[in-house]
Amino acid sequence: MKLLSLRTEKENFIGIIYDESGRILNLTDALPLYQKLKNKIDDFPRIKTITELFREQLFNIDLFKRVIEFVEKHNLMEYLFVKESFRYNAPVEFPPKFVCLGRNYEQHAREFGATPPSEEPIIFAKSGTSVIGHLETIYIPTDVGRIDHEIELAVVIGKRGKKIKKENAWSYIAGYTIVIDVTARDLQRKDIQAQHPWFRSKSFDYFAPMGPWIVTADEIQPPVELDLKLWVNDELRQNSNTRNMTFDIPSIVESISRYMTLYPGDVIATGTPEGVGPIKPGDKITAWIQNIGELVNYVEAETD
Amino acid sequence: MKLLSLRTEKENFIGIIYDESGRILNLTDALPLYQKLKNKIDDFPRIKTITELFREQLFNIDLFKRVIEFVEKHNLMEYLFVKESFRYNAPVEFPPKFVCLGRNYEQHAREFGATPPSEEPIIFAKSGTSVIGHLETIYIPTDVGRIDHEIELAVVIGKRGKKIKKENAWSYIAGYTIVIDVTARDLQRKDIQAQHPWFRSKSFDYFAPMGPWIVTADEIQPPVELDLKLWVNDELRQNSNTRNMTFDIPSIVESISRYMTLYPGDVIATGTPEGVGPIKPGDKITAWIQNIGELVNYVEAETD
Repeated sequence: MKLLSLRTEKENFIGIIYDESGRILNLTDALPLYQKLKNKIDDFPRIKTITELFREQLFNIDLFKRVIEFVEKHNLMEYLFVKESFRYNAPVEFPPKFVCLGRNYEQHAREFGATPPSEEPIIFAKSGTSVIGHLETIYIPTDVGRIDHEIELAVVIGKRGKKIKKENAWSYIAGYTIVIDVTARDLQRKDIQAQHPWFRSKSFDYFAPMGPWIVTADEIQPPVELDLKLWVNDELRQNSNTRNMTFDIPSIVESISRYMTLYPGDVIATGTPEGVGPIKPGDKITAWIQNIGELVNYVEAETD
Repeated sequence: MKLLSLRTEKENFIGIIYDESGRILNLTDALPLYQKLKNKIDDFPRIKTITELFREQLFNIDLFKRVIEFVEKHNLMEYLFVKESFRYNAPVEFPPKFVCLGRNYEQHAREFGATPPSEEPIIFAKSGTSVIGHLETIYIPTDVGRIDHEIELAVVIGKRGKKIKKENAWSYIAGYTIVIDVTARDLQRKDIQAQHPWFRSKSFDYFAPMGPWIVTADEIQPPVELDLKLWVNDELRQNSNTRNMTFDIPSIVESISRYMTLYPGDVIATGTPEGVGPIKPGDKITAWIQNIGELVNYVEAETD
């Protein structure tokens, strides 16, 4: 199942992709109707973002399936289709935590002359305020030097947990999406050299394109070995498979949750393979991950 | 005005300290009643956390004052007092961004043999999932070496803004609170030496006691030169004044907002003065900042 955070001029809403032809069910409208007609709950709120679904503990694949069946049975499809034109938000805006892995593909670590981590993953934070959606524009400042693309498979947490063991990790995952971990490389290098944190070079506005949707975990079977590719314009820049990660998904979940409780809606970007490189105004970036889809973003120069 | 995020067994709610005797007005109850009787809005939602107030753009000192006047005029005080016993939440839970300053007091930088930054503040992220409230317990793992206290004045952002100029910075601040930036020091040192990010050593669960409340910005006049002190048990460990910060509040706001939009509810901890030191199970930590108040937390060993 594919869940989308969408918006019209009027409001945000959640969509579920219904069929191959791309028809989208409006879950924000369907859920209160289902609760009213099926469960006699009159004042069920309109949940407008996937982040809110997680916050209210309503991100539940079985519930989504029951809503779809209900809609089909009562012939509400026409009524609940998304008909207006819409734009994509990042599937998870303002996640409780947005954690990223550094140097989690050996060949990427080596392309910067760095050592891949051995004992534990390198983790850092990206600001939750840097996310943008599919087809949105990355506005980049022109006075900070090189800015790079980094395609990453992102895991979205569905269940609260701490000290999660590797063997239980998969059950904490709600789904998967694509993140481009845009990085102000020169600033990062300067900060790394000074032994300073990585946060700011990773957290500019627009530096976390995410999407286009969340593919629910039931559709991608462990061990989640997926091809991932990134093009800048027509040039293939990154091309690898998530099986090349140094720390696999269960190890990452175990390591982060050793000290930090994971919350529903937390996003973990699992690191980027080799081939990262600069982006510039005018570029079109296409990030593709097998079984998930294609995230497209444009690059423009920031203006004041 | 002092705003509190509180909870009973049943639910979260927002309080406003009403008078010197410590009477607290229940804003979560009062706001919908005010909107109904005064403005004929029948279905105004119950806003249960300060984070939600910010999200809904309802953190407004004039509004709070009008609600208090209304409550007094209609003799609703008895009805709207907080009578139940309650516990403190962190005033801002799950802030959109939780940014901290590194080495922003010269003498603190020097106590670790580090250089204070010269051109720009050092910023890093703390996880929004590490916050706890006044009188809560910091559960510390016993297998990660030294864990330190760091008292910090925290600024809470009230208005969205980017590329904010120093001279306009004060108008973006909603209020002030206290943060103890608890730090897994040995882990941080190891990560700094490896040129790794600071994030994990700063972001364990319980590592961000915050509170006890937000003092609204109208009560603390610029340039915000406040004494701050921290005791572990009866021992005074940190004792300085915020005027000793290397980068003052307007400079910090200008620097962070150069690349990152600041959002209502964002929390910026402005760095800690000299005197940081280890905490251990059994300790009581008292953090006091002039014109704000006293934040008290207890330390215990984490159990599995």
